[in-house]
Amino acid sequence: MSDICYSLGQLAEMLGADCVGDPEIKISGLATLASATTGHLSFLANPKYQKALSTTTASAVIVSEDMVAHCPCASLVSSNPYLTYANVSQLFAKKFAKHQGVHPSADIHSTASIDTSATIGAHVSVGANVSIGANTILDAGVVIGDDSVIGKDCHLYSNVTVYHGVVMGDRVSIHSSTVIGSDGFGYAPSPDREQGGWVKIAQLGGVRIGNDVEIGAATTIDRGALDDTVIGDRVIIDNQVQIAHNVEIGENTGIAACTGISGSTRIGKNCTLAGGVGLVGHITIADNVHVTGMTMVTKSIDKPGAYSSGTPMMETRQWKKSAVRFAQLDAMSKRLGELEKKN
Amino acid sequence: MSDICYSLGQLAEMLGADCVGDPEIKISGLATLASATTGHLSFLANPKYQKALSTTTASAVIVSEDMVAHCPCASLVSSNPYLTYANVSQLFAKKFAKHQGVHPSADIHSTASIDTSATIGAHVSVGANVSIGANTILDAGVVIGDDSVIGKDCHLYSNVTVYHGVVMGDRVSIHSSTVIGSDGFGYAPSPDREQGGWVKIAQLGGVRIGNDVEIGAATTIDRGALDDTVIGDRVIIDNQVQIAHNVEIGENTGIAACTGISGSTRIGKNCTLAGGVGLVGHITIADNVHVTGMTMVTKSIDKPGAYSSGTPMMETRQWKKSAVRFAQLDAMSKRLGELEKKN
Amino acid sequence: MSDICYSLGQLAEMLGADCVGDPEIKISGLATLASATTGHLSFLANPKYQKALSTTTASAVIVSEDMVAHCPCASLVSSNPYLTYANVSQLFAKKFAKHQGVHPSADIHSTASIDTSATIGAHVSVGANVSIGANTILDAGVVIGDDSVIGKDCHLYSNVTVYHGVVMGDRVSIHSSTVIGSDGFGYAPSPDREQGGWVKIAQLGGVRIGNDVEIGAATTIDRGALDDTVIGDRVIIDNQVQIAHNVEIGENTGIAACTGISGSTRIGKNCTLAGGVGLVGHITIADNVHVTGMTMVTKSIDKPGAYSSGTPMMETRQWKKSAVRFAQLDAMSKRLGELEKKN
Repeated sequence: MSDICYSLGQLAEMLGADCVGDPEIKISGLATLASATTGHLSFLANPKYQKALSTTTASAVIVSEDMVAHCPCASLVSSNPYLTYANVSQLFAKKFAKHQGVHPSADIHSTASIDTSATIGAHVSVGANVSIGANTILDAGVVIGDDSVIGKDCHLYSNVTVYHGVVMGDRVSIHSSTVIGSDGFGYAPSPDREQGGWVKIAQLGGVRIGNDVEIGAATTIDRGALDDTVIGDRVIIDNQVQIAHNVEIGENTGIAACTGISGSTRIGKNCTLAGGVGLVGHITIADNVHVTGMTMVTKSIDKPGAYSSGTPMMETRQWKKSAVRFAQLDAMSKRLGELEKKN
Repeated sequence: MSDICYSLGQLAEMLGADCVGDPEIKISGLATLASATTGHLSFLANPKYQKALSTTTASAVIVSEDMVAHCPCASLVSSNPYLTYANVSQLFAKKFAKHQGVHPSADIHSTASIDTSATIGAHVSVGANVSIGANTILDAGVVIGDDSVIGKDCHLYSNVTVYHGVVMGDRVSIHSSTVIGSDGFGYAPSPDREQGGWVKIAQLGGVRIGNDVEIGAATTIDRGALDDTVIGDRVIIDNQVQIAHNVEIGENTGIAACTGISGSTRIGKNCTLAGGVGLVGHITIADNVHVTGMTMVTKSIDKPGAYSSGTPMMETRQWKKSAVRFAQLDAMSKRLGELEKKN
Repeated sequence: MSDICYSLGQLAEMLGADCVGDPEIKISGLATLASATTGHLSFLANPKYQKALSTTTASAVIVSEDMVAHCPCASLVSSNPYLTYANVSQLFAKKFAKHQGVHPSADIHSTASIDTSATIGAHVSVGANVSIGANTILDAGVVIGDDSVIGKDCHLYSNVTVYHGVVMGDRVSIHSSTVIGSDGFGYAPSPDREQGGWVKIAQLGGVRIGNDVEIGAATTIDRGALDDTVIGDRVIIDNQVQIAHNVEIGENTGIAACTGISGSTRIGKNCTLAGGVGLVGHITIADNVHVTGMTMVTKSIDKPGAYSSGTPMMETRQWKKSAVRFAQLDAMSKRLGELEKKN
């Protein structure tokens, strides 16, 4: 349990939910239906967990109206229990220490402008002409390159690196080991490879990140070659995502872990890319497109919908047979055509 | 060669192997059969390298009993040469500096408890109420969040980030740039996406890591939403692995590089996941399951065995033909059925 | 626009291009044809952008000879416009601050040798017996382990970690969060798994990196088990690439993001691996091999060419049908054979 405590009635009021049961019940934590005990508030958002509702020992549960009768304890009634759970979860989140100013070990360039309400952790480095907005927190070991702008109410977790010339809005969270603004992977092949190899194309663009964006851990977003790489408002990005130079991500789009997006590809608004998806470069994905896990996206998608690739998991022994046949598919198709002609 | 030196007889005794040849031979390093010279101990674990045994210039070789006659030099005879090689390798590993205390540049919260035998490197940050066990080493730039517990004999390499509320056992190694305890990727879609986008679900759980766990570089393990994410005893995890919130990994399981495990999935004991494997969320993998590289695991696996997906590599020109036919597979199957009816 | 300014005539001379138009035109930045304005130099390297040439408001454009007549402004004429663009881009790259010496917060071991022209940023750690060459820059938070050698004119961006015993040549760039020299993933399975689990094989080799190598962000290159992991001259490696122990990469090879290479695999010269490719261990890839995105490489490739695997993206509803049929492929093939016998 946390140190945070509310009465059920208080929560009902804050969340816009109806309180069924004693409004004086004390809630000091959240838990799943299975692990909740006295003092816990739980939730039922997925009907498949209804059985767990009947046996829960939670003090109260967030439920939809049709579930109130099945609830063995008090309840908060909501038209969207999952959204209500999301809202209440924030009330019980760890409160980071109040404004602590600039840690004495931080290295801040004399030309940087840091709001007096910002918190700058130990061993942070902030470059020339950087601007850090109100209430923003830079945790230990964060590095901000020259000329970058970090908005208000942002939280950059430990060991995040932001290169020079990166501009982000307000309420942006970036998790540890993530890198924003590293060079895009751009080279011109030299005609004499033996002598010259690859000639690097200096990456002169920056990265622009909108408001209310969250970026996971160990994710990389490269700076643009000439124009900027752009992440729209309210985009959510998971861990270990790779976003190449000059990619543009539309508003509200969500990108799950281990996905890679190649250079200059544009993703629309309200899209979801599941985990491990790969997109080639220079393509355009329409709004409201949903791509399932590990799909290889090799061309533009111009209408909303769900898209997939890959083959189903099988026992290895059986899979080997299908894999061999895959290589014979064109021949099989031709043989089938021949037979059809004969019949 | 290293500064470390043993006689062959000493090694035989320490390793529980039989010494064939002069026990006074000096061994000051390990090398492959092909590159070993005088002073090197080598090993033969895979019969396909038997030819290299006949020409090796090593001073001694770890072999199984049936290979002693083929060994052109002294040998250490073991019933499991690969395991004996693993054991002897540790004798020649770089010895990290003895206890060096807390580096003056480290930022240690006044409430943190650090064993007097621990070594805390330069520019390390340790948060409130943290506990660091005996002989544990935190290399330069490591960050440990509030309320986290690091056991005894652990080694966290440079620039590892551990968030708040992470608990790990003894003899845990974590390589650089790895992040433990970042927020899980949990959001409730807001009904009015244009206005609200995604509502973040605060990630209130932690991460629990057992004893004798090794975690590679640039790996990410998210904290749980309500309950903890759990890594069992003796689990080994390679580089660039993504483990989402509330995943549970059973004892002795090994996970190779670039694998991603989605939220709430449970992996059994003694499993191996090869590189680049992806698992969807909310599934269960039984004990003793082995998944081959780049497999897309979209459903639970309830019996031990080997599992695979994907298609074989081909020359691109030929592959394009098979890929086109893959999209026609359902039609081909129906055409085949029609022909069968006519015959 | 940057502070950097050249006349068109100066650029023509520096780049070995012909100047068509007024050589006194001032160029103070680069831009795409679509976004260029007065003072910008642009380029046309891909014929599909020819339409944008006719409407550009750039001050000058790098073009091939046959495009001069279509250029609405001054031009620099080159036999290879893309290569000329690469060369000119470097003239407009952000100039990092001149030599700044060693930041007072850096922790430098007394036995390390740092060239007087090197720049060592804030909160850097440099271990025992390390050598840092002339003009090399270590940005904030970089860590260099004992006995490692960094050549001349290298640039390691913030929060890069280099372990002990890593040797790199001159003009090597490494982007943030990247880890060089972490332990390879090597363990001997213990016969009594319940008791012992995995026995770690100490990784006694190092990493050797040639000259003129660029390595992206959040990439991992493991040290060798006995011999070294080797990256050849002029190799370019993108973000989030995983290179396991004892891999060898030949000269001039390029590796795109999210690719993973398993242990002891050898890649030839002048190869390209596109994004998300996976290679099993202990195989050999010939020179001049090109592997398309997300290909699963399960065996050696002994002749030059292009190689692929995977299935095409489809609408999910249709894809599910093909996926089901994939599992039936062997049976389909046999049924086809039966029909052929009857006909």
